[in-house]
Amino acid sequence: MKLASDNTAGASLEILAALSKANEGNVGSYGGDDHSHRLNQRFSDIFEKDVVVFPVVTGTAANSLALASLTPPHGCIFCHELSHIYHDEYGAPEFFTNGARLQPISGESGRITPDQLKALEVRFPPGDAHRVSPTTVSVTQLTEYGTAYSLDDLAAIGDYTKKQKLSLHMDGARFANALIGLGCTPAEMTWKCNVDVLSFGATKNGAIAAEAVIFFNPVQAESFAIRRKRSGHLLSKLRFLSAQLEAYLDNDLWLNNARQANQMANELKTIIDNSGKGTIQFSVDGNMVFTTINKDCQTDLRQAGFEFYDIPEYGKNVVRLVRSFNTTTQDISDFAVVINR
Amino acid sequence: MKLASDNTAGASLEILAALSKANEGNVGSYGGDDHSHRLNQRFSDIFEKDVVVFPVVTGTAANSLALASLTPPHGCIFCHELSHIYHDEYGAPEFFTNGARLQPISGESGRITPDQLKALEVRFPPGDAHRVSPTTVSVTQLTEYGTAYSLDDLAAIGDYTKKQKLSLHMDGARFANALIGLGCTPAEMTWKCNVDVLSFGATKNGAIAAEAVIFFNPVQAESFAIRRKRSGHLLSKLRFLSAQLEAYLDNDLWLNNARQANQMANELKTIIDNSGKGTIQFSVDGNMVFTTINKDCQTDLRQAGFEFYDIPEYGKNVVRLVRSFNTTTQDISDFAVVINR
Amino acid sequence: MKLASDNTAGASLEILAALSKANEGNVGSYGGDDHSHRLNQRFSDIFEKDVVVFPVVTGTAANSLALASLTPPHGCIFCHELSHIYHDEYGAPEFFTNGARLQPISGESGRITPDQLKALEVRFPPGDAHRVSPTTVSVTQLTEYGTAYSLDDLAAIGDYTKKQKLSLHMDGARFANALIGLGCTPAEMTWKCNVDVLSFGATKNGAIAAEAVIFFNPVQAESFAIRRKRSGHLLSKLRFLSAQLEAYLDNDLWLNNARQANQMANELKTIIDNSGKGTIQFSVDGNMVFTTINKDCQTDLRQAGFEFYDIPEYGKNVVRLVRSFNTTTQDISDFAVVINR
Amino acid sequence: MKLASDNTAGASLEILAALSKANEGNVGSYGGDDHSHRLNQRFSDIFEKDVVVFPVVTGTAANSLALASLTPPHGCIFCHELSHIYHDEYGAPEFFTNGARLQPISGESGRITPDQLKALEVRFPPGDAHRVSPTTVSVTQLTEYGTAYSLDDLAAIGDYTKKQKLSLHMDGARFANALIGLGCTPAEMTWKCNVDVLSFGATKNGAIAAEAVIFFNPVQAESFAIRRKRSGHLLSKLRFLSAQLEAYLDNDLWLNNARQANQMANELKTIIDNSGKGTIQFSVDGNMVFTTINKDCQTDLRQAGFEFYDIPEYGKNVVRLVRSFNTTTQDISDFAVVINR
Repeated sequence: MKLASDNTAGASLEILAALSKANEGNVGSYGGDDHSHRLNQRFSDIFEKDVVVFPVVTGTAANSLALASLTPPHGCIFCHELSHIYHDEYGAPEFFTNGARLQPISGESGRITPDQLKALEVRFPPGDAHRVSPTTVSVTQLTEYGTAYSLDDLAAIGDYTKKQKLSLHMDGARFANALIGLGCTPAEMTWKCNVDVLSFGATKNGAIAAEAVIFFNPVQAESFAIRRKRSGHLLSKLRFLSAQLEAYLDNDLWLNNARQANQMANELKTIIDNSGKGTIQFSVDGNMVFTTINKDCQTDLRQAGFEFYDIPEYGKNVVRLVRSFNTTTQDISDFAVVINR
Repeated sequence: MKLASDNTAGASLEILAALSKANEGNVGSYGGDDHSHRLNQRFSDIFEKDVVVFPVVTGTAANSLALASLTPPHGCIFCHELSHIYHDEYGAPEFFTNGARLQPISGESGRITPDQLKALEVRFPPGDAHRVSPTTVSVTQLTEYGTAYSLDDLAAIGDYTKKQKLSLHMDGARFANALIGLGCTPAEMTWKCNVDVLSFGATKNGAIAAEAVIFFNPVQAESFAIRRKRSGHLLSKLRFLSAQLEAYLDNDLWLNNARQANQMANELKTIIDNSGKGTIQFSVDGNMVFTTINKDCQTDLRQAGFEFYDIPEYGKNVVRLVRSFNTTTQDISDFAVVINR
Repeated sequence: MKLASDNTAGASLEILAALSKANEGNVGSYGGDDHSHRLNQRFSDIFEKDVVVFPVVTGTAANSLALASLTPPHGCIFCHELSHIYHDEYGAPEFFTNGARLQPISGESGRITPDQLKALEVRFPPGDAHRVSPTTVSVTQLTEYGTAYSLDDLAAIGDYTKKQKLSLHMDGARFANALIGLGCTPAEMTWKCNVDVLSFGATKNGAIAAEAVIFFNPVQAESFAIRRKRSGHLLSKLRFLSAQLEAYLDNDLWLNNARQANQMANELKTIIDNSGKGTIQFSVDGNMVFTTINKDCQTDLRQAGFEFYDIPEYGKNVVRLVRSFNTTTQDISDFAVVINR
Repeated sequence: MKLASDNTAGASLEILAALSKANEGNVGSYGGDDHSHRLNQRFSDIFEKDVVVFPVVTGTAANSLALASLTPPHGCIFCHELSHIYHDEYGAPEFFTNGARLQPISGESGRITPDQLKALEVRFPPGDAHRVSPTTVSVTQLTEYGTAYSLDDLAAIGDYTKKQKLSLHMDGARFANALIGLGCTPAEMTWKCNVDVLSFGATKNGAIAAEAVIFFNPVQAESFAIRRKRSGHLLSKLRFLSAQLEAYLDNDLWLNNARQANQMANELKTIIDNSGKGTIQFSVDGNMVFTTINKDCQTDLRQAGFEFYDIPEYGKNVVRLVRSFNTTTQDISDFAVVINR
């Protein structure tokens, strides 16, 4: 069983069925189809606000296109030093923004705080002719540490960015998992905290390849369509991408998948806690468990077929266990058996 | 019925079935799956040469990533002035190459010739410190005019690029249609004519969203994986993309689809010729027919439900009729009825 | 004697004297000096309009920074196919604009016309999702062919760009020569014809290394200072650059230098005409003479110490003879002796 | 008296005289002059090694062009978090490299160490498909804190970069000041410690606008000339820039200027130490003194005509006092009088 990533799972059957259905008939290309036409309204309903939505195939594209919409080449994006945009996208944000700066911040448990942002102000005096221009803050919800920002955390950051006239981007590759973890509404976790743009992830939580970039402030979306085209991310048969997003939202598939994954992660956490073989590193707020496990036990688990990543940058012997929507109770029981040997 | 583009059709059922099959089990992400592992061998068999293959989701990405692998920012790409890379990708090649120059050439019927390239040499003296550096030639097969380069045409260009130490890229968005049109082998139409890199299109001919960038000269592929990642074109669940390409090749689906589309285009050509209502503009070598049709007749066709583009840059009253793999004999008969009214 | 370029001459003594004078005292860096402070007013007086001025050290920087201020990465700049920005700056405009398109136009004698721009409109339907966005027209005054646009020519282009909401840039590397040639005012040759930004050259006409980018529409200058800094073109001891421009304008040095160079070019033209050894190619409107000279006579001239460029892209046996502000009557007489042997 | 920066001083009279001398005669443009031809040999003599040299007008251009020669767009440059390239060039390195990453390091007194570089290795596993590629380390000598790396410090970094196959760049905007401070040879401070490329500053130490990029490893210089042209940094009348560098080296002007500035800084340090009004913050190894001074005393100094920058990012009440080559003993005495009031 693979615990390495939520990308090793396939897709929900509902998503596949939606593709077959979307295949019927000849329709307009490049978004001239009904599935694509419906997306804005569909997400507007879910977010309780008129939003503008663009589907793309990867989280890297979603984040980078979103950031490039918010950030000129001479701008500066504040983000966590181990955030996906800084640490795991091979400089994609720099490519898409034509060379903007990402200023890393070493926040605890993957979160950054307004105090940290405030402390950096001294380096960016307004109107300075030599420093890059602070323009953007990016937060990840769930963070790469599997933790969630609380609504208060987000509100504090959103108050800060609004006051400082910075844009606020949220990388929501695991948005649904965070939402279930917090038990709040999509609106509460985003624009009510002044989030301007959201990378709304679906791929990790059951889609084939589908992310939505959601603008809560339509004026910021003005250059998006052009950037998407110029970067080769406008699909000609866009219906197949839009249909995935529709199916993802239909019948709460997205929420159910995330709930299942989170629950499995919590059971895993309990098993590890009880086993005495490892120490949970961070609060388990979604579907990821970071834990130390001693080397012998790691070997046993891997020999038993469990796959997972070492994450040395998070500490010695730290491994990451990621639960997907398709993790079963049986998988968890098997894990318990091996770790308790 | 839509004749506007081969992108208005859906996908072949075989492609959809392949997705469902690929969905089984947890597998490595980012290409660590069997479908992706098999691609190099599969295409090497078809092209009778060891090739390196990278799947991506759009033709724009395929072309731009291929060109960026061949062309430094200070390089110059020679191409037709109405080629897709110059005319229809919103400057994507410039974005991916970090600002290389595309030098347009106004060749007849969409083709460029070695003589035209030769005539430009006077503008690029070797080692000049002020001119962009000629590095790359790009040809499109089928061209945007629906014509094909003959094997002799291609050989002449390939001889020229080899002698001048230029790289040669082929935009094969409609590669299968050209192949059927010429009745030759994939090898003959590419590396045997010194093509270095091919954008091998599948989307227009039956896939959902799948193109393959094929390097005949592996050393030129060195930066590709990084460029793909940096531009957000590395899918996490890559199996779903690779599986499309496999299914596209299985049982000659690609050739059968193209044969069907080409045949329908030829019937359409005959109907127009016989109708006396239009004049075919260029040789119909694949699945596209460019024709003048008088305005009244255009109105009749559109009222009858046929959709197609005006192409004013190709001449007055010129329209483009594109046949897809799913065009039926009935569609063609209906067209004949209306045009002959 | 060098006739190859107006860059082979040194600087006017007045310019050198100005540097020594500017050297006195400690002053603010990065433009915080009196010379720099005075530039806006000085040029505003000359152009009879409030302008915003930025000094830089090269024409390539002036042109590229100006164009980048007017043109987004997805924009398109229309220019002559042998203009300096297209043909002689190694893709600098693409570098500074982050990959904008330069659309070459093959106008007669180095000039482009509104009709040519109009003819291209069919390729750029408004709001098209696939084509680069027309944003900018660039003209060169003097052109690279040594010809000048007449005021009527410029007015026609300016009317067109205004109507089409395009920005208009003028590369004035030889602005003073054109001005003398036309006998008009700086205002008439620029903003009165709707020129938005001018690259005002001084280097070729007597400065050491000094060009001024002049914005007639201050709102377009907003990003200039940042672009200049990011590209390494903000001098720390800016006083030495600003002082060159002041001295260039003082006592009509710029006009006197240009008048002298133009007069010498005209005498050269007469000599060639009378010699029967060459045919003048284009109207001599400034300080450059393009002429065929038969190969034997070219050899004689070069053996006698005259240096000049072959310009094969302008025709067989065509050479370019450029007169500088420091060309003397004696130089011209010497030339006459050799050509008439 | 301005203590704000070494850029507020004018130029040495020897430099100005050199310009006048270089003005004689018509010479080849773009480097085709004797001054430019001599530079490689001249610097090779000084550095006891065959070097390749390119003159440019600003330190930002020197650094960015050097870094871009060493670093691909997907590369990563390790540097101090308050280094000039990270903190004071408005993202110029990102612009010139087409979006490379600068990874900031918070080293003590402006220096980074091999241990800090080593500690970051965990984040960059070799061949990782998601992280930027470590390619380059940049050190500043003098640092922005006025301190110098010792030869042992540099050797340790150079050993590390060589072992890790990283390139090593040195920003030597105040190279001469550091050299005098350490009392070593140019070779010892650079290539003998595995420095690959040096930004050799002259502007701050007596030139008008002149820096030299010096490659100790000529193969790394291959793309430099093209990058310089594309960024508008190739002067047409290059003789005037090369002549500044020659005069800077003639008769040890560069060393004498630096010696004078360093000596004045040391006297200033002593005065502050003795005054009891401030605390020197870092070792004074060159021409810069960072010190706290209480607010009242700061006010007195400013009212007396001394100008200097607050540097809040270095601590509360910290100011920077920079001595230039033209600072006199009288200036220092005046300072002593005011601070001791």
